Amino acid sequence: MQQKADIILKGGTVLTMDREERILGRADIAILDGEIRYIGDNALSLYNASTIIDCTGRVVMPGLINAHTHLPMSLVRGIADDLRLDVWLYGYIFPVEKNFVNKEFCRWGSLLSALEMIKSGTTCFVDMYYYEDVIAGAASELGMRGICGETVLKFPSPDAISYDIGFKYARAFIEEWHGHRLITPAIAPHAPYTCTPDILKEARKIAEDYNIPVLIHVSETAFEVENARKEWGMSPVEYLDNLGLFEAKTIAAHCVHINEKDMKILAEHRVGVAHNPTSNLKLASGIAPVARMIENGIDVAIGTDGAGSNNDHDIIEEMRLTALLPKGILYNPTVVPAKKVVQMATIEGARAIGLDQVIGSVEVGKRADLITIDLSGVHNIPQYNILSDSIYSRIVYAAKSSDVNDVIIDGKVIMLDKKILTMDEDYILKHIESLSGEITAFMHKRESSLVDKLLAIGGIEWKETFEVQVKTRVDGPVNIDEIISNENIKLIRKSTRDQFDTYLLFNNSTAKIRYREDEVTENGKLIETIYTLTLVDRAYEKEFPNFVLLSGSCFSSIADKSLRFYREYFQPDRIFEINKKRKRFRILYKGIDFAVNVDEITNPKDGGYFIEVKSRTWSENDAIKKAALISELIQLFRLSEQNLLKDDYTELFLDK
Amino acid sequence: MQQKADIILKGGTVLTMDREERILGRADIAILDGEIRYIGDNALSLYNASTIIDCTGRVVMPGLINAHTHLPMSLVRGIADDLRLDVWLYGYIFPVEKNFVNKEFCRWGSLLSALEMIKSGTTCFVDMYYYEDVIAGAASELGMRGICGETVLKFPSPDAISYDIGFKYARAFIEEWHGHRLITPAIAPHAPYTCTPDILKEARKIAEDYNIPVLIHVSETAFEVENARKEWGMSPVEYLDNLGLFEAKTIAAHCVHINEKDMKILAEHRVGVAHNPTSNLKLASGIAPVARMIENGIDVAIGTDGAGSNNDHDIIEEMRLTALLPKGILYNPTVVPAKKVVQMATIEGARAIGLDQVIGSVEVGKRADLITIDLSGVHNIPQYNILSDSIYSRIVYAAKSSDVNDVIIDGKVIMLDKKILTMDEDYILKHIESLSGEITAFMHKRESSLVDKLLAIGGIEWKETFEVQVKTRVDGPVNIDEIISNENIKLIRKSTRDQFDTYLLFNNSTAKIRYREDEVTENGKLIETIYTLTLVDRAYEKEFPNFVLLSGSCFSSIADKSLRFYREYFQPDRIFEINKKRKRFRILYKGIDFAVNVDEITNPKDGGYFIEVKSRTWSENDAIKKAALISELIQLFRLSEQNLLKDDYTELFLDK
Repeated sequence: MQQKADIILKGGTVLTMDREERILGRADIAILDGEIRYIGDNALSLYNASTIIDCTGRVVMPGLINAHTHLPMSLVRGIADDLRLDVWLYGYIFPVEKNFVNKEFCRWGSLLSALEMIKSGTTCFVDMYYYEDVIAGAASELGMRGICGETVLKFPSPDAISYDIGFKYARAFIEEWHGHRLITPAIAPHAPYTCTPDILKEARKIAEDYNIPVLIHVSETAFEVENARKEWGMSPVEYLDNLGLFEAKTIAAHCVHINEKDMKILAEHRVGVAHNPTSNLKLASGIAPVARMIENGIDVAIGTDGAGSNNDHDIIEEMRLTALLPKGILYNPTVVPAKKVVQMATIEGARAIGLDQVIGSVEVGKRADLITIDLSGVHNIPQYNILSDSIYSRIVYAAKSSDVNDVIIDGKVIMLDKKILTMDEDYILKHIESLSGEITAFMHKRESSLVDKLLAIGGIEWKETFEVQVKTRVDGPVNIDEIISNENIKLIRKSTRDQFDTYLLFNNSTAKIRYREDEVTENGKLIETIYTLTLVDRAYEKEFPNFVLLSGSCFSSIADKSLRFYREYFQPDRIFEINKKRKRFRILYKGIDFAVNVDEITNPKDGGYFIEVKSRTWSENDAIKKAALISELIQLFRLSEQNLLKDDYTELFLDK
Repeated sequence: MQQKADIILKGGTVLTMDREERILGRADIAILDGEIRYIGDNALSLYNASTIIDCTGRVVMPGLINAHTHLPMSLVRGIADDLRLDVWLYGYIFPVEKNFVNKEFCRWGSLLSALEMIKSGTTCFVDMYYYEDVIAGAASELGMRGICGETVLKFPSPDAISYDIGFKYARAFIEEWHGHRLITPAIAPHAPYTCTPDILKEARKIAEDYNIPVLIHVSETAFEVENARKEWGMSPVEYLDNLGLFEAKTIAAHCVHINEKDMKILAEHRVGVAHNPTSNLKLASGIAPVARMIENGIDVAIGTDGAGSNNDHDIIEEMRLTALLPKGILYNPTVVPAKKVVQMATIEGARAIGLDQVIGSVEVGKRADLITIDLSGVHNIPQYNILSDSIYSRIVYAAKSSDVNDVIIDGKVIMLDKKILTMDEDYILKHIESLSGEITAFMHKRESSLVDKLLAIGGIEWKETFEVQVKTRVDGPVNIDEIISNENIKLIRKSTRDQFDTYLLFNNSTAKIRYREDEVTENGKLIETIYTLTLVDRAYEKEFPNFVLLSGSCFSSIADKSLRFYREYFQPDRIFEINKKRKRFRILYKGIDFAVNVDEITNPKDGGYFIEVKSRTWSENDAIKKAALISELIQLFRLSEQNLLKDDYTELFLDK
């Protein structure tokens, strides 16, 4: 009697990618309940299936794995290319992300990317972005398998003003999706340099709590590694290892600049590496030492990275680059051969991302994630099989992603004869068009308002998000030394400055740009002049008791160009100057770092005297704690609560 | 009144690639007699055309130029990959070429490649191969434009046993095709290291005689450049410059290993460079310094190289690599931007190959070589135009060759809506299948006979093709010193050797493999032992008066493995040993180099005494001249013409 099956794939050339590396000519596959139940030459008589797909003349193989991407970023595909990395990021990608990344953006961007991936033979992806619940929803709606890593980092993100909130979001997401048929939720601390050690430790804890993977960017650029050595005295890989992150199953994206010692660590902890050749070239990060990684026994998977830096999701193209680059770099045509690359995109990739028990090969008992490829295009003719590996070389060196014919994921036919069955493509494309129209309008406006163009000129540092401060007017010169002679206060440093601030103000923006010449003096003698450019946006401020302010984002850079340049570049609607003599004290109060500024405003003339107490931090919780300490300092300093000011100097003196 | 037109392309986004880099939205193009007659927004009312192609939503641009390929080699696509270069060449490519390259092979291989190129948007190619008349015929039959360079080199080639004959073939081909509407014939000296100076000089002369370009491979590998410095004391580029080759319009393929001095020479002589990124990676040649070439003002075009080493003819993929590689290598994301790459594949490429007056841009008066690309695929959505160069980046970073929709060459529609109009594809594919079947059968047979496997183990040197020799039995020990004491003979060198030769013989082959231990002695003392492996195939021998033999191909290498290894590897049907004591004299006779061997055969015992006079040369004409000189030497040496022998030692002693 015939057994039941949902689907039979009939008569294809099956690349099993199993341990014996079997290639089966004219073989059948029977699928039931999403699982591969039979591989052989007689499915039609053994099984009774409602769907029979004739695969004669096609290759049937495990679906391809895209081990690193940012699905929603297809919405910034091609928005700007061939630019300096900082100009690209700060001038285009960050502004769009800051203004547009919300649930809707993530949904439509993910649907677009998922469509593109399915059409090019990818059945499983590993994503790092924000609103991963939405991404998981969109991808699974189309029927894709994926690991969705909710990003946490020390900067404010589109879905979390601080990392505390980010972790809350992540936990809720993981709880919701844990155990899903298609989606594996994950935690994604963005990178060593964008996370505090606390974030990395917490990420590991969450991964262990839920038995889910950690996704992280590691050693993408030489600059990152250089900085790590300066700051921590070790490589990013060693740093993460020291923090114990690799105790959790980790998938490390990029690893372009890693050395032998790093590789030993990655291999020992079975950290999977996601190799992204196009993105690493396009962003000028370099070329990852894939051949050495393989020799070191590391499981290397292949990724596209986000469409912002690729600019597509074509894993076959990445496979080709994975095979080609090491040959040219090492002057050795035998390294990373085609078969190895097909393994990296299937079974070895599955091992790298921790799903090799579930997918990655055509074997009875595995989930049915399968694709068929038509290798009969003129670009793949003739088809020699004199050497047994030639079929792999056809896929890697000559096939195009447009040769992918059918896609089955978890036993469901997602694409048949190049037609997507699970969703209306036009419906998705219509939404993409409307969203990209909004982004275009925004960017045109931005180009004309010029405010965010600060970000486009580079060298910008994103400072700690939260500035906790209080400011008060005082009657005259203040003897601060006396005030701070308290047993709870320790003076760290003290300096005197003549500060010449020029504010560039814009009619339609809450942001302003400050150009500061900071003449540091010692005993009346000029020691050095520091030029800085700062963008302050008070739009995100929160207020707390006693007018303590929690300021929002703040970008700062060394101003290496003239004030004239900045005036021409930004074309502000208004310019406003404030000069002051500042005595600056760095103190520890109850062990916490604060700055105390005693200012005499010299321009506008007779502007008066002020005291400011300030501190900066990445964490909102931390900011609230510091705000309480500032309240105590106000009392210690015996400052009148009546005189506490909410406005900054421009607001105090402008139009007065 | 309306003017006549053959074709109107209606309403596309036209990338003109003209000097002003104009991008025209919704523009029309009118074509008459193969020429672009009108570009504007009103073709339908100004022109009356029989064919109107609606290009709404598509990009219309100049056809892409593939500046370096070997069309027939699509027939060896994927036959073997990821092997050592020598194993790949000697083990697979050369044997197939030696046994299969004839007019039929070239015709069908060229049709296949031309089909593939048209489908991926290439309208003009630059080819170097054999039987270029056939290639020109096949490509022009399909309607493609091309520069067809007939290869000449010092080795025997499929269409010429020597370069003298090669030049004859080339001149006839050039005469036949000169002035053709689509085909520009050219002369293609293969490479500096495969040509003699005479070949290079003759190539330049032919180029100047007919005002046609010279095509040549230059500095493809580091090894080639190293050898050039050893042999000539200068780089291949300097060497060619010294020989005056660049006085003719030259297109130099590869140029992977060139330095600043080379680039200055190439720029000064307006040598066009054909950059082949995939092939250079895949064969492990390296990565060409394209960014520096551009900075040096060299016209750089883009090529695929033959499908043997690529393995396809996808110029869009090569464009992407052209843009990506320099960024990753130089850690600079702004070098070789997308727009530059599109120029390299169109107008700048046309300049590099000397056709910029004819094609390469969409301008009134140019030939109508145009393609349309559909950029509406999900992998190219959304389409931002915030920056004016974004359309180039869409083509380079996200488009696939399968997005090419229509192809017009010289005003003729070759492909419409992805359908080839000029030939029956199936008809071509059927022939390819049959030819590749024959090649497969041959390779399987070869794998089993194992003879040609010598070539697969590498280190092989192809020696001068023609061995001119005479051998005679003499009665006893000969005092050669006396014999050669003649005013016309000058002794160069003299050595004594104990030679232990082991011949591997095969039942079904004219070829034999000789393993030789050559103990060089001086005054009875062993100086050194030289181990060589030589493949001798007498199938191509010619006879001349006095039994002077012109021997055919001969490959030789240092035997760095044991005799046991070679016996196991080749599994000969028979093994035969000959030992001899040889006195070897290098002499000049009338200024020409000859070797005189005086042999005493010690195994088989009492084998007797022999004298051989030999010389080697690349040129058949030269060989004939030398044969005449050998006849004179025979008389000088007073050797009996009765005793002259035709057989070699194995034939003399085997089975006796």
